[in-house]
Amino acid sequence: MKIIVTGGAGFLGSRVIRALLAGAGRQDGLPGFDAIVSVDLSPCPVEDPRVASVAGDIADPGFVRQVVGADTAGIYHLAAVLSGGSEADFDLAMRVNLDGTRALLEAARAAGTVPRFVFTSSLAVFGGPMPKVVPESLATMPASTYGAQKAIGELLVNDYSRKGFVDGRVCRLPTISVRPGRPNSAASSFASGIIREPLAGIPADCPVPLDTRMWLSSPGAAVANLVHAMAVEGGRIGPWRTLNLPGLCVTVGEMLASLERVGGSGARALVREAPDRRIMDIVCSWPGAFDTSRAAALGFVGDSDFDSVVRQYRDEFSGVRTA
Amino acid sequence: MKIIVTGGAGFLGSRVIRALLAGAGRQDGLPGFDAIVSVDLSPCPVEDPRVASVAGDIADPGFVRQVVGADTAGIYHLAAVLSGGSEADFDLAMRVNLDGTRALLEAARAAGTVPRFVFTSSLAVFGGPMPKVVPESLATMPASTYGAQKAIGELLVNDYSRKGFVDGRVCRLPTISVRPGRPNSAASSFASGIIREPLAGIPADCPVPLDTRMWLSSPGAAVANLVHAMAVEGGRIGPWRTLNLPGLCVTVGEMLASLERVGGSGARALVREAPDRRIMDIVCSWPGAFDTSRAAALGFVGDSDFDSVVRQYRDEFSGVRTA
Ligand SMILES: NC(=O)c1ccc[n+]([C@@H]2O[C@H](COP(=O)([O-])OP(=O)(O)OC[C@H]3O[C@@H](n4cnc5c(N)ncnc54)[C@H](O)[C@@H]3O)[C@@H](O)[C@H]2O)c1
Ligand SMILES: NC(=O)c1ccc[n+]([C@@H]2O[C@H](COP(=O)([O-])OP(=O)(O)OC[C@H]3O[C@@H](n4cnc5c(N)ncnc54)[C@H](O)[C@@H]3O)[C@@H](O)[C@H]2O)c1
Repeated sequence: MKIIVTGGAGFLGSRVIRALLAGAGRQDGLPGFDAIVSVDLSPCPVEDPRVASVAGDIADPGFVRQVVGADTAGIYHLAAVLSGGSEADFDLAMRVNLDGTRALLEAARAAGTVPRFVFTSSLAVFGGPMPKVVPESLATMPASTYGAQKAIGELLVNDYSRKGFVDGRVCRLPTISVRPGRPNSAASSFASGIIREPLAGIPADCPVPLDTRMWLSSPGAAVANLVHAMAVEGGRIGPWRTLNLPGLCVTVGEMLASLERVGGSGARALVREAPDRRIMDIVCSWPGAFDTSRAAALGFVGDSDFDSVVRQYRDEFSGVRTA
Repeated sequence: MKIIVTGGAGFLGSRVIRALLAGAGRQDGLPGFDAIVSVDLSPCPVEDPRVASVAGDIADPGFVRQVVGADTAGIYHLAAVLSGGSEADFDLAMRVNLDGTRALLEAARAAGTVPRFVFTSSLAVFGGPMPKVVPESLATMPASTYGAQKAIGELLVNDYSRKGFVDGRVCRLPTISVRPGRPNSAASSFASGIIREPLAGIPADCPVPLDTRMWLSSPGAAVANLVHAMAVEGGRIGPWRTLNLPGLCVTVGEMLASLERVGGSGARALVREAPDRRIMDIVCSWPGAFDTSRAAALGFVGDSDFDSVVRQYRDEFSGVRTA
């Protein structure tokens, strides 16, 4: 049996694959598998005999149905056009984020194995007036195309689960910070950039006000939670499959204070305030804190504090970086 | 300029067309139009030189784009596979309720006129744990395929509006009662049947417990509100275009008490309790009351009480019915 990871060449996808390989047979509850198939436009960077990298477009139903077969035990659906890219190219985002998700769900249904189906959603499903702490029962009123399409994906995964076509798990991930590598098309890209670049001695722009509350997760916590999402028994989640995953609520000012404590005042001084309306419009419509008690009761865990997140990043990545 | 009505051959669609014709040029705020085009699988029953009836499938993008042209001032999107039918035929419902809505939104966008776009949603978007009175901010957790697809339609209309492709208005209609004619595939069909049939001397089955709370609107109030939804200025609605329309909160027992007061104890005695798990599963997942203050502030109005609704039905239809 195999586990499919769409977006397996991406940031979270490649890390989930590594975590599955490292823990294979050890994490209680994971469906049995002997192969992992990355499905992505790009080749998967993980080199391991158990990993197959299939290049293709998830918005092509014929291709997707070919990849997902009757030997599919689980699917991670991570491939997506991110928030900034979706706002810039509506049609591409509809094709990948909506048609792609549907093609994958249809292929999973056709497989007939009722595979576990982990879908990564986002706090971008929220918008408009918002309580200080977002409960599970808050309406999704997305203020971005990306958020609208994630909210639609949530509804599809839930209905396909209710019908017994897949065994879905929708993970509303916090914004990931600190993300190594280069800036990307996500509107929240700065949430990593304002830590990552200064730690490497590079100036960084902060496009939102310092009192903007962010809802964050380290890459490590997010990946561990995605592995857990595949492992947890469907019946324990209950009929509604959407979960607000644990995160840290910090303001951008507090993030920069962590940067200063871990990286020094020189690093802090490299961050310049450069308000950007396009990014503010998207990011400031997102909530800053969530009630995650349901996820916690199911065994999902978050980071302890942002200083440790910055320290973890510095120790893992900063050294090897050539700035 | 023209107004398009998908589902124009249907119950609400044909009544909206009649109301538009009756009030043409009189209701303040309606976009100017000199023609109404019904788009439906069936021919539109309204005979009037201003009405064109086009037969076709709204899930066919080529056909839809042909019908929606640069002379489109407004669109009512009412064509749908209803709740019972959607639960019975998932693929048909996906095609009509999801692909059809998308095809229509795309055609409206291509028209370039930013037409007003009235979409009829439903309380079936709600499910799971629910407060006694549903606020605008309640999450949609549909427990039916129909509800999931209506919730997706809401998200699409909102995002197309935010992008400036259409000027959308999403009306979450209460269950319509008393609906004349024959039972249909809606799971809520009984909410009309238990009044309509006994008033005509015909026995009727009641498939849900008598303490089930229903959220109802007479056909007259619903149609008046749909006309108003096209007339109200978009800026007054604000960025989030979904509205809970006014309704009456009554239990099935109270409905039958109204039946008895208006139609006599003989009529009441014709209703038999006949629990039906399939219908209960859908209908009992719906909320029984809503906070509709936002819609009220925008000028939408509801019925005063259920006795008048039954009386209105009896006076208009019961006499002409040949049982
Ligand atoms: N990183 C975050 O902060 C965050 C937060 C919330 C949700 N998410 C979600 O998690 C998922 C993974 O995010 P990420 O940070 O790893 O993003 P990423 O951009 O690193 O990875 C996405 C991958 O999807 C692939 N892809 C895009 N279009 C494709 C197509 N048509 N067919 C096949 N593959 C395609 C890309 O090639 C890329 O490798 C996404 O669904 C994202 O929306 C991420
Ligand atoms: N009546 C209610 O209680 C109620 C409540 C809430 C929402 N709504 C919504 O209001 C709208 C109208 O409801 P109604 O009671 O008039 O339903 P109806 O069944 O009388 O009318 C629906 C019409 O859509 C047409 N149709 C179906 N599939 C089509 C397709 N593929 N292409 C073209 N036309 C197609 C049908 O021929 C029919 O004439 C629907 O969207 C419904 O979901 C109704």
